[in-house]
Amino acid sequence: MAESGFKQKVLAKIDEEKESIINLLRGMVQIPSVVGDEKAVQEFMAKKFEEMGLIVDMWTPDYEELKTHPGFASPNTTYENRPNVVGVLKGVGGGRSLILNGHVDVVSPYDEESWDHKPWSADIIGNRLYGRGSSDMKGGIAAMTMAVECIKKAGVRLKGDVIIESVIEEEAGGVGTLACVVRGYKADAALITEPTVIEEGGLPMVCPAQGGSMWFKVHVQGKSAHAGLRYEGVSAIEMSIKLCNALWDLEKFRNEKLRHPLYERYKIPIPLNIGILNSGVWPSSVPENATIQVRIGIAPGENIDSVRKQVTDWIAKTAELDSWMVDHPPKVEFFGGTWIPTELPLDHPLVQIITDSYSKIFNTEPVLAGTPWGADGGILVHHGDTPVVIFGPGDMRVIHFPNEFIEIDKLIAVTKVIAFAILDWCGFVT
Amino acid sequence: MAESGFKQKVLAKIDEEKESIINLLRGMVQIPSVVGDEKAVQEFMAKKFEEMGLIVDMWTPDYEELKTHPGFASPNTTYENRPNVVGVLKGVGGGRSLILNGHVDVVSPYDEESWDHKPWSADIIGNRLYGRGSSDMKGGIAAMTMAVECIKKAGVRLKGDVIIESVIEEEAGGVGTLACVVRGYKADAALITEPTVIEEGGLPMVCPAQGGSMWFKVHVQGKSAHAGLRYEGVSAIEMSIKLCNALWDLEKFRNEKLRHPLYERYKIPIPLNIGILNSGVWPSSVPENATIQVRIGIAPGENIDSVRKQVTDWIAKTAELDSWMVDHPPKVEFFGGTWIPTELPLDHPLVQIITDSYSKIFNTEPVLAGTPWGADGGILVHHGDTPVVIFGPGDMRVIHFPNEFIEIDKLIAVTKVIAFAILDWCGFVT
Repeated sequence: MAESGFKQKVLAKIDEEKESIINLLRGMVQIPSVVGDEKAVQEFMAKKFEEMGLIVDMWTPDYEELKTHPGFASPNTTYENRPNVVGVLKGVGGGRSLILNGHVDVVSPYDEESWDHKPWSADIIGNRLYGRGSSDMKGGIAAMTMAVECIKKAGVRLKGDVIIESVIEEEAGGVGTLACVVRGYKADAALITEPTVIEEGGLPMVCPAQGGSMWFKVHVQGKSAHAGLRYEGVSAIEMSIKLCNALWDLEKFRNEKLRHPLYERYKIPIPLNIGILNSGVWPSSVPENATIQVRIGIAPGENIDSVRKQVTDWIAKTAELDSWMVDHPPKVEFFGGTWIPTELPLDHPLVQIITDSYSKIFNTEPVLAGTPWGADGGILVHHGDTPVVIFGPGDMRVIHFPNEFIEIDKLIAVTKVIAFAILDWCGFVT
Repeated sequence: MAESGFKQKVLAKIDEEKESIINLLRGMVQIPSVVGDEKAVQEFMAKKFEEMGLIVDMWTPDYEELKTHPGFASPNTTYENRPNVVGVLKGVGGGRSLILNGHVDVVSPYDEESWDHKPWSADIIGNRLYGRGSSDMKGGIAAMTMAVECIKKAGVRLKGDVIIESVIEEEAGGVGTLACVVRGYKADAALITEPTVIEEGGLPMVCPAQGGSMWFKVHVQGKSAHAGLRYEGVSAIEMSIKLCNALWDLEKFRNEKLRHPLYERYKIPIPLNIGILNSGVWPSSVPENATIQVRIGIAPGENIDSVRKQVTDWIAKTAELDSWMVDHPPKVEFFGGTWIPTELPLDHPLVQIITDSYSKIFNTEPVLAGTPWGADGGILVHHGDTPVVIFGPGDMRVIHFPNEFIEIDKLIAVTKVIAFAILDWCGFVT
């Protein structure tokens, strides 16, 4: 059979298995797996990998082993009942190996009342499958898993190994992927199937670069006073407003200074988001303290420590321009996860292969871009020596919010692109 | 004995009882009485009034009776274990009656760690007695109570009745004083001994006018988005900053428009305080909601409903100038207590008498001013038909904060001024 014949068999198998793809995703979405509570869904994945005939490795990441690793960033000191699962399809030899990586943890649904379709319902309405994690990123895991299954069911034998990593805790710093690296899982390249749709009705982008990000708090000190004599005090809210404006100026400064071809399509290539502001305890007292919590984006090529210093210096200089803050300087505290930016050259073979596969399935060239958000790719690249492309069926605009959904036609089409990419990357016996 | 002879006897008695005044205040401060938990200190007051030979009336305010009263403003629906105490010294007849009013509830000490002298210690260091409530306003209650006791102990018989009201819940809306009014306690005038020192080392002011105040929240709606695409969202923090600036403009507008001779000494006669701002749930999400909590001052002569309308209209007009808020207008919600402003003409006999008494004790004319904060006076004036002056030994700058204190020499001097004022107002048998 010619090469194209094998590919046609795999395509036909994916069309035949459409309901299985949807059902796998429904099964995953119906198991709540808010970060920290991944056990049930991981057992589900392990069972799936076993049924597929993969070599299944399920283990609990070990805090003691990981805590001193330079890539370690986690709010936790134990991962009990939070296993990682890896399923390996061994190739016959002579091909390139590929990691397919996805995280099963999801962010909280927060206020379930504001969901029209309940977060764990996996309701299907027309082309949409609803639920927390449907786009971020159980959809991606379903697509990559079923791509492998359909290749196998079509009777195609791969040359290189495929390693499917179903990991925990991406949403809080990436310890799951780090644990895979430390356990020894490496490959010639990796595909992470995080959501890369960013426009309503748009097609997924292919992302050879991913932005990094990190979090920091600014602790602001004012001086309390009774509201009746409020001018005797110094409002921490007033100071916070100065600092917020300074932070938005910093965002502007950074985005005007930095140029990156894969980020030019974004209105704000490396966004700085002021996510939380809390100040004050009583309506009739001048607020004495405030805390501002910020997420700053980091462009590929930027040095994390330099960005930290830039933030700290920027806040310090802002304080020097205020008669109160010059003597009561706000304190900057970096906390929580750090997502390392990373990028591949556009002529890297995996980028080429995914681009070609994409063009065959979607009948159009993909948009190549960097992601403006962080993911586990930085860990694979910097600590696992594995080049990464991000490409997945989810929609970035709906994740982390009520009524998260994924479009079923994209889920199926992306499964096909991944299957083609696996065939071309790993090679197969004709 | 000539009039001045009786006054000298009372003065001498106060000097003799200096330690008893301090001890009464220490006893009160050592009993925690955060608003809602006033029972123990009220039992202490009732015992004191009994020992003084007053007619003691201790009762629990009745929610059912009070709730429909136009002066009712309380966050509670029961006052169980929160009695009011009134002690009455009947005059021999032919004189004017006087209410002496003070509240035993205090605001929380909040973070006890930041107190060098613990909130319920009543530590004395030099001229200062420390503790939550020492200035606001157990010091005032000690002074007015001991003024009456010393008059009695000096053997002076008053013509008019003196009614000492030891009330609950001033800090949350004044239901204790309202309950006194509803129970029938009225008089020809009243003195409230709230703190009126406003400058370090300064003397207490005599305040024939008191500002009012009320609280409101502004509920702000944004639109969430992932930080990486933050420009797809609308930051509730950004909207809140616009609204805070608008509120400070409103304060400027009101203070430039309003003129009141008793308020000209204040940098901001009717302050608007933004006390609390809370927004956001996650550093990496654009904050969708915010709540701003505000205390607005009301000048004597202003109509409460007009001020409410002014606030609501101001926010509405601000929203109309913003492309997001015009379609997603912030909501204004008035909540919690309302302190009604009030004032007496400067030639009212009680103002004259307190001024004269003050001059004799302090050897200087008092500063006459309005208070920039609200108190229970509005209830006595508007619902109890009783004119009010505010004058007390506490220091406004230290109340509601850690290390609240009162200056002992002022406590004693104010006790003397009050005693003289009682003698002159009620009249006495010579």
